[in-house]
Amino acid sequence: MPKKKKRSIAKDELKKFGKKLADDIKRGKNPEITLPVRALSNIIFDKKECKLVLGENVAKRYFFNVAHAKRFLQTVEIASICKRLIDENKHASLRDVFYMAKRTIPKTKINIVDQQSESDKAIEDLELITNCSREMLHVTANKNGSVAGNVIIEDRGDRIDWSKLGSGGWSIPSVTDEIEFKKVKAKYVLYMEKAAVWERLHEDRFWEKNKCIIMSSMGQTTRGIRRLLQRLYEEFDLPIYVLVDNDPWGIYIYSVIKYGSISLAHISGKLAIPGVKFLGISADDIEKYGLQRHFIKFTDKDINRLKQISQYAWFKNNKAWQRQFKKMKQNGAKVEIQALSSKGISFISEKYLPEKIKSKDFLD
Amino acid sequence: MPKKKKRSIAKDELKKFGKKLADDIKRGKNPEITLPVRALSNIIFDKKECKLVLGENVAKRYFFNVAHAKRFLQTVEIASICKRLIDENKHASLRDVFYMAKRTIPKTKINIVDQQSESDKAIEDLELITNCSREMLHVTANKNGSVAGNVIIEDRGDRIDWSKLGSGGWSIPSVTDEIEFKKVKAKYVLYMEKAAVWERLHEDRFWEKNKCIIMSSMGQTTRGIRRLLQRLYEEFDLPIYVLVDNDPWGIYIYSVIKYGSISLAHISGKLAIPGVKFLGISADDIEKYGLQRHFIKFTDKDINRLKQISQYAWFKNNKAWQRQFKKMKQNGAKVEIQALSSKGISFISEKYLPEKIKSKDFLD
Repeated sequence: MPKKKKRSIAKDELKKFGKKLADDIKRGKNPEITLPVRALSNIIFDKKECKLVLGENVAKRYFFNVAHAKRFLQTVEIASICKRLIDENKHASLRDVFYMAKRTIPKTKINIVDQQSESDKAIEDLELITNCSREMLHVTANKNGSVAGNVIIEDRGDRIDWSKLGSGGWSIPSVTDEIEFKKVKAKYVLYMEKAAVWERLHEDRFWEKNKCIIMSSMGQTTRGIRRLLQRLYEEFDLPIYVLVDNDPWGIYIYSVIKYGSISLAHISGKLAIPGVKFLGISADDIEKYGLQRHFIKFTDKDINRLKQISQYAWFKNNKAWQRQFKKMKQNGAKVEIQALSSKGISFISEKYLPEKIKSKDFLD
Repeated sequence: MPKKKKRSIAKDELKKFGKKLADDIKRGKNPEITLPVRALSNIIFDKKECKLVLGENVAKRYFFNVAHAKRFLQTVEIASICKRLIDENKHASLRDVFYMAKRTIPKTKINIVDQQSESDKAIEDLELITNCSREMLHVTANKNGSVAGNVIIEDRGDRIDWSKLGSGGWSIPSVTDEIEFKKVKAKYVLYMEKAAVWERLHEDRFWEKNKCIIMSSMGQTTRGIRRLLQRLYEEFDLPIYVLVDNDPWGIYIYSVIKYGSISLAHISGKLAIPGVKFLGISADDIEKYGLQRHFIKFTDKDINRLKQISQYAWFKNNKAWQRQFKKMKQNGAKVEIQALSSKGISFISEKYLPEKIKSKDFLD
């Protein structure tokens, strides 16, 4: 069973980590942890693999070093919490782990962690040390999003048919590594940033008529969704199309799914999906479908973000994207997916999406 | 079928509204709309019914009145959009309706609506005019939240078993009026504001061990969830317990579910659930379970909000609640649900919740 296997991999890695430290101590050595530097200076855009990865700079953290001791202790404490979670076969949220680690160091008045950011960082360190994702360490983040399609999965012993869940759909959990796909009948996956658009497409039974899977979250894509998209892409060779607002925030959502994010560069391999395509809303769609009358003026924040994104390594030399950014700058305004509703409530499912997909009008 | 009936009720009401205006015109009368005033001055806390309702002040809106003409037109336009949605048996989100209404008045350069707030208000007016909820008018808002329990429903022709949906659960749609309950085996419903807590309880199969239904959203409770809670309360006589952080925002979540909200006072009858109980986290829980060490200091905003809430009509003369507010003020800090995790990952499901529920330690 792959489920069991993953658990034992993470457990073995945690044991290895503990044993290494115990050996240091037995040998009278200053216990040390070696791990890649996670500063911006050590984050590289791997052109061949087409994703953000960590460079080769490593740092050592020592127990007997005033500057290192606390983070050292935090890392070991979190490792012990993860080990316990895996042993008990339970999952904890990042917030839970923070509270579990927030205890006073015996005979002092100092807490092991005071802020969640400290335990979060320790978990990221552990991902690097063990080469296991946070999910494999049994730590979860927010759950969000729904999915529908002609797919049958098995999860915690339940057989779930994504095509037979009424108007709601399946609520995507925070950990999607452990679900088993039993039947996947789809030609592609359509991911959108808005739950309301998902409800529109679901009511129109878009997934049935177009033989696809529809998936959404609200705003930022959760790691659970990213892993689910990646698994469908890798295990079933399904193209992934992303539908977002025409604004820098929408494009960043696409960018994170495709290339990974700066803050999670250390785990890009487990999350980035280089084959993902941007379906819309593109600057050309705005012209083609006459959506200019639904412009919402950019704020200064939008304009700055657009500039930042256009300079990202993976967009900088991409002519098609630079053309988009230029047009967006000229527009000086965003257009939302729902602006398509001005052309009819089901225009999106009956015309816009089928046209775009048939003519393969994507950005890469 | 209740589904069809609801559709025809809303349609009949919309037709009645249109006919009344057409009659005004035929008779050479200035077309008028009469509706209750929705200002704070006309919002009353109905002590007997125990919910926020509108008072008896009404206002008239005339077509031939420069100050009224635009809102008059907006109301009629939105009514026509709703009629079309019902005819086509499709649902649109608030944002969709805005884009559908956002068109230029022929021979002018004036848009019918420029901001979503305008179409939103027109929809609220229509709820009053037709006495039908927004959902009955086929307009939806955000979808959010998950549910699990020993319940079987039928929705859009699918039979869905809430006990067999793996780690994800059923994703709660924005309209829950139309689902049919086929089997409900539960002693109560536990609603929590945090998806991560829901995942914890679901992993522990809390709903199975304690014969209940667990439901969550993220932050604010959607109308879809409020209607679902209300239906389970009214149709199956199930007690509803609310689990939120010990801070003014958590208490307001409880307050809205129980009494309705000021902005939606006109629809309280369809949404408020006077029998709802506050399960926790109470100020007493903080003492009983020694959660003081997990205090997160109030900001000025928190303190002001606490003061506001403590003066609401439905809390003002409630001694038990005033005692809570006093303690919260003394604490000057909030405590999150997840602080319970400091006592063990499953402390919440194995000890805290069973103890509270067994001893009926609720606030009313």
